[in-house]
Amino acid sequence: MIHILSNGHSILNQFIAEIRDSEVQRDSLRFRNNLERLGFLFAYEISKEMNYNDREVATELGIANVPVLSEYPVLATILRAGLPFHQGFLRLFDRAENAFIRPFRKPHKDHTFSMNIEYASGPGIDGRVLIISDVMIATGKSMLYSIKEMLTRGKPSHIHVASILSSAEGLDYLKKNLPDNGISYWLGVIDEELTAQAFIVPGLGDAGDLAFGKKF
Amino acid sequence: MIHILSNGHSILNQFIAEIRDSEVQRDSLRFRNNLERLGFLFAYEISKEMNYNDREVATELGIANVPVLSEYPVLATILRAGLPFHQGFLRLFDRAENAFIRPFRKPHKDHTFSMNIEYASGPGIDGRVLIISDVMIATGKSMLYSIKEMLTRGKPSHIHVASILSSAEGLDYLKKNLPDNGISYWLGVIDEELTAQAFIVPGLGDAGDLAFGKKF
Amino acid sequence: MIHILSNGHSILNQFIAEIRDSEVQRDSLRFRNNLERLGFLFAYEISKEMNYNDREVATELGIANVPVLSEYPVLATILRAGLPFHQGFLRLFDRAENAFIRPFRKPHKDHTFSMNIEYASGPGIDGRVLIISDVMIATGKSMLYSIKEMLTRGKPSHIHVASILSSAEGLDYLKKNLPDNGISYWLGVIDEELTAQAFIVPGLGDAGDLAFGKKF
Amino acid sequence: MIHILSNGHSILNQFIAEIRDSEVQRDSLRFRNNLERLGFLFAYEISKEMNYNDREVATELGIANVPVLSEYPVLATILRAGLPFHQGFLRLFDRAENAFIRPFRKPHKDHTFSMNIEYASGPGIDGRVLIISDVMIATGKSMLYSIKEMLTRGKPSHIHVASILSSAEGLDYLKKNLPDNGISYWLGVIDEELTAQAFIVPGLGDAGDLAFGKKF
Repeated sequence: MIHILSNGHSILNQFIAEIRDSEVQRDSLRFRNNLERLGFLFAYEISKEMNYNDREVATELGIANVPVLSEYPVLATILRAGLPFHQGFLRLFDRAENAFIRPFRKPHKDHTFSMNIEYASGPGIDGRVLIISDVMIATGKSMLYSIKEMLTRGKPSHIHVASILSSAEGLDYLKKNLPDNGISYWLGVIDEELTAQAFIVPGLGDAGDLAFGKKF
Repeated sequence: MIHILSNGHSILNQFIAEIRDSEVQRDSLRFRNNLERLGFLFAYEISKEMNYNDREVATELGIANVPVLSEYPVLATILRAGLPFHQGFLRLFDRAENAFIRPFRKPHKDHTFSMNIEYASGPGIDGRVLIISDVMIATGKSMLYSIKEMLTRGKPSHIHVASILSSAEGLDYLKKNLPDNGISYWLGVIDEELTAQAFIVPGLGDAGDLAFGKKF
Repeated sequence: MIHILSNGHSILNQFIAEIRDSEVQRDSLRFRNNLERLGFLFAYEISKEMNYNDREVATELGIANVPVLSEYPVLATILRAGLPFHQGFLRLFDRAENAFIRPFRKPHKDHTFSMNIEYASGPGIDGRVLIISDVMIATGKSMLYSIKEMLTRGKPSHIHVASILSSAEGLDYLKKNLPDNGISYWLGVIDEELTAQAFIVPGLGDAGDLAFGKKF
Repeated sequence: MIHILSNGHSILNQFIAEIRDSEVQRDSLRFRNNLERLGFLFAYEISKEMNYNDREVATELGIANVPVLSEYPVLATILRAGLPFHQGFLRLFDRAENAFIRPFRKPHKDHTFSMNIEYASGPGIDGRVLIISDVMIATGKSMLYSIKEMLTRGKPSHIHVASILSSAEGLDYLKKNLPDNGISYWLGVIDEELTAQAFIVPGLGDAGDLAFGKKF
């Protein structure tokens, strides 16, 4: 199931416009804040597909029957660019457990590269709902290998893949390499072009640099 | 148009459960945080009914066509209980103008009371979208008189009334006293009982006291 | 005791520079954020003068003796401009009770004016520490009458007056009209000039308008 | 230069009490919030030792001479536990560049271990001010090897080491292995005991687990 969140007109498009806009990007506080707000809203839309149990809650004046989350999902993200987006997920699902993954593109002499996991930390996910988020899906390789890394920690009941900006090619790559069942995609918007250097066009630039500064 | 946001199961119900729960209420930081999160989510749902224009945004690598808000709404709230809920609206609609209103129940000798506006501050609203929010609608009188106060500042193009918890009676009162056209109601949940002292049952208690402490 | 917080060079000056800068002010999210950050830092400096009791805290591995606040202060602020600054105080003193006051300048035919309190809400303050904050002290009249209003709720053990920007004249006015004992002033910076229209120069403009939009 | 921030009684002690308290720790939102608030306050104290230039700022009504930061520091932190603490630093120094480091204890057969860097990302730091933060300094090895990693990116003009809770032994280890000049230590509190398993007593437990959940 693929959800394109920008299709339903909402303020989400305003935030996407701002994170794309090279003028607005110069304020990294606003840039990170927009990623966090988007994370909160993506998490909210995903929360509509989760399970709830009725619970009796004692108010000062009586008893209310209110649905509460049956279980909190595991929130995984990809370092470092995913951190502010993940922050929004965690602000919504504040009792969730979290995973951090760092996939790494190891270049080869023939200009190809293979994927390694430099660092990964997180809970077991057997039978649990997994939400894995990153700002962008370019080739899809980082996301694919991060999901594979998470799957070494158990078999989740459902996987939600969340990304603000995906290339069409990256989405195809994920769909081709992941099972159809048990995976939902939550995408802000899909951009058609992916350059040979794996830049999404028009895209938004390097989300990690824009949030945290250039790398050495 | 009446939207009951708790009907679509989402994390919103979890937050409503927490603000009702007299145990969880003891942490006023979490209480205010829940009101703010709810305000953010209500604002987001309302943003789906607003108007957007396509704008060309220059990214580092190209031009993206993105819908942006045609106009920011005016965000009105009712003092003091509405402040943390309003905070969530303003975090979403960060470029909005704001109004603060303090309706006051003036008691009479015969145990009835009339409504006064002690304090009101805000922009002109002629032709603009107005969102007016309060944590609860009990009798509906505070909300009605706050809307009437806002209408002295111009005729809005649309009014959105947002409240986390409404009594059935309060909603009826508003519908009876406000025109059907041009008003949308966004309610978290409707509680059936309203006591003679205007407490909603099971309700959640006094939202102002829980957020800011008891009054002298 | 008068504390001028900008004297000790710190990031506080950076935030004051930003809220003064008419270019930076155009982003009302950053403007409010700066007021909130300043409120948090003012509250922290004030917290150094408060009383603490040692408490035994059980960690997972042992017992730690840690000083905790003997009592939380009452946080009063002045509507509407004081709200984002107050938000910072409340983020620091998250268990505090709060007061909101709306002093009003009632103009007379002879171009003088008198001060009224339109709206005030807050707890009793007998024997308690009161922190009262506003973004600016221009003539000092709003602050003086707000303090007088609070004093109808009891006799505090100490009053802290906190303001980011004060005119020299406003500070003199307060010192002349309030007792020397039991009052501490915490000021970001003092500007020398106050115009006949009660604008501080160079000042920062109208803090309420900049945070919340122009009034009707 | 060693600064023990809990010595000057302030609200900082309240926050340290809360993050130690195994009862309060059960609310991971408050736990992370406390780490973030502490990060903000540590950053503020460090900002008092940084350099400022006078800048002319145009307000609406005049020109103000205000000191602004001469340069923003580089904010490094240690994964994953350091993230919420770092969040507070970045909320204060919002225009800073950032570094993330993951030191890893590689165990050997003889029950000793050596330190590896699994992942590191950050800017060049030649001639710049570096602030490196982590929630705790236990043996001091993670901090030492993270600093060494950063030093491969250039020679900073000054290093600030910030940690909420340090063992006496960890601090000694750092002082022994780092030059005396050009390094300032900013510590919340020093605990005397360090167990053979490298747990600080009374300490606070595993900050990473408390913020983000147990690891697989």
